[in-house]
Amino acid sequence: MCNNTVITISRQFGSGGRLIGKQVADKLGIAFYDKEIIELAAQKSGFASDFIRENEQKLKALSGYGVTSPLWGSGVWGNLENFESRIYAAEAETIEHIAAQGPCVIVGRCADYVLRDKCNCLNVFIYADLDSRVKRIIEVYKEADDERKALKLARDTDRLRARHYRYYTDAEWGEIDSYHMCLDSARLGTERCVDVLAQAYKLMD
Amino acid sequence: MCNNTVITISRQFGSGGRLIGKQVADKLGIAFYDKEIIELAAQKSGFASDFIRENEQKLKALSGYGVTSPLWGSGVWGNLENFESRIYAAEAETIEHIAAQGPCVIVGRCADYVLRDKCNCLNVFIYADLDSRVKRIIEVYKEADDERKALKLARDTDRLRARHYRYYTDAEWGEIDSYHMCLDSARLGTERCVDVLAQAYKLMD
Repeated sequence: MCNNTVITISRQFGSGGRLIGKQVADKLGIAFYDKEIIELAAQKSGFASDFIRENEQKLKALSGYGVTSPLWGSGVWGNLENFESRIYAAEAETIEHIAAQGPCVIVGRCADYVLRDKCNCLNVFIYADLDSRVKRIIEVYKEADDERKALKLARDTDRLRARHYRYYTDAEWGEIDSYHMCLDSARLGTERCVDVLAQAYKLMD
Repeated sequence: MCNNTVITISRQFGSGGRLIGKQVADKLGIAFYDKEIIELAAQKSGFASDFIRENEQKLKALSGYGVTSPLWGSGVWGNLENFESRIYAAEAETIEHIAAQGPCVIVGRCADYVLRDKCNCLNVFIYADLDSRVKRIIEVYKEADDERKALKLARDTDRLRARHYRYYTDAEWGEIDSYHMCLDSARLGTERCVDVLAQAYKLMD
């Protein structure tokens, strides 16, 4: 059990949840972790950080696509499955470690679940309507050049996130019961989300 | 279109959402409406306020229970169905009227939907885990004297609210997409919810 207050942020792809988390951390003067966890987990696990980046949420999710080959659980599939479990374990260990260092904001990676009953957590879900997310994916993230591709990217990424979360936790990704607070970043705006979260953090600290 | 900022609160039964709404209104020094809407709608519609209180969410909901008697839509059922639509219309008119008077907090009655595109709304959903709600229903509301009854009351009331909301709006009750902000009153606590909402309101005003 650590005494630090930790804001964990789960977010729909394209909602700007990462940016909100970063700005909250900056406003509060506390640490921020998102992709940084990959580097730290790489050091712990011995995996290359590129390998973690590519595979942290991809493999287990395949089992949800009805891949029931007899090879599953053995051979190459078994190795991939084991790799993902080992990546998850390394990331979870990393998350526990950084939460014990001081108050912080952690984005993704089931941090809410990893730190349950361990820290004073404020578990947040950031969401937005699909149109706003598609716009952000094209204009801000620049990860798609047309609406069709951006829409597919948003849906596919969220599907992977939901499956990954369901696999490793006993809760549902994106449903209110899994969080303390859910904020619509499109209708509230980034700045208001940041201010509301900073206020909530101060009240918990 | 009114220029007033209105906080609309939808809430799971037993979550303490009404109390949170009242305290936010008091803290901000703005008007608060919950059951007051019944009295005002009674004046508008000519129905007795007791009749509205009893029937405002009950009748349409029956259609969701598979009541497909040939009497449905005619005779006594038809009258009841028409009564509920007239109650809804009177409440909606009341809500538009009070929102035009000044900034306020409105609890329930699809106010978020009634005021969509009409006011500067902050639409909020207050929820809590079932155990906390059961406890509150027994100890605070005193509407049940054992856990089984409180649980049934929570589930039945929320089922009616969800059906009522689905019937009159094009959105789902209790799902994040329908709100700007969702707060877990059990894990955040009443006071923190009030402070966070007051902060969000000030940022919108």
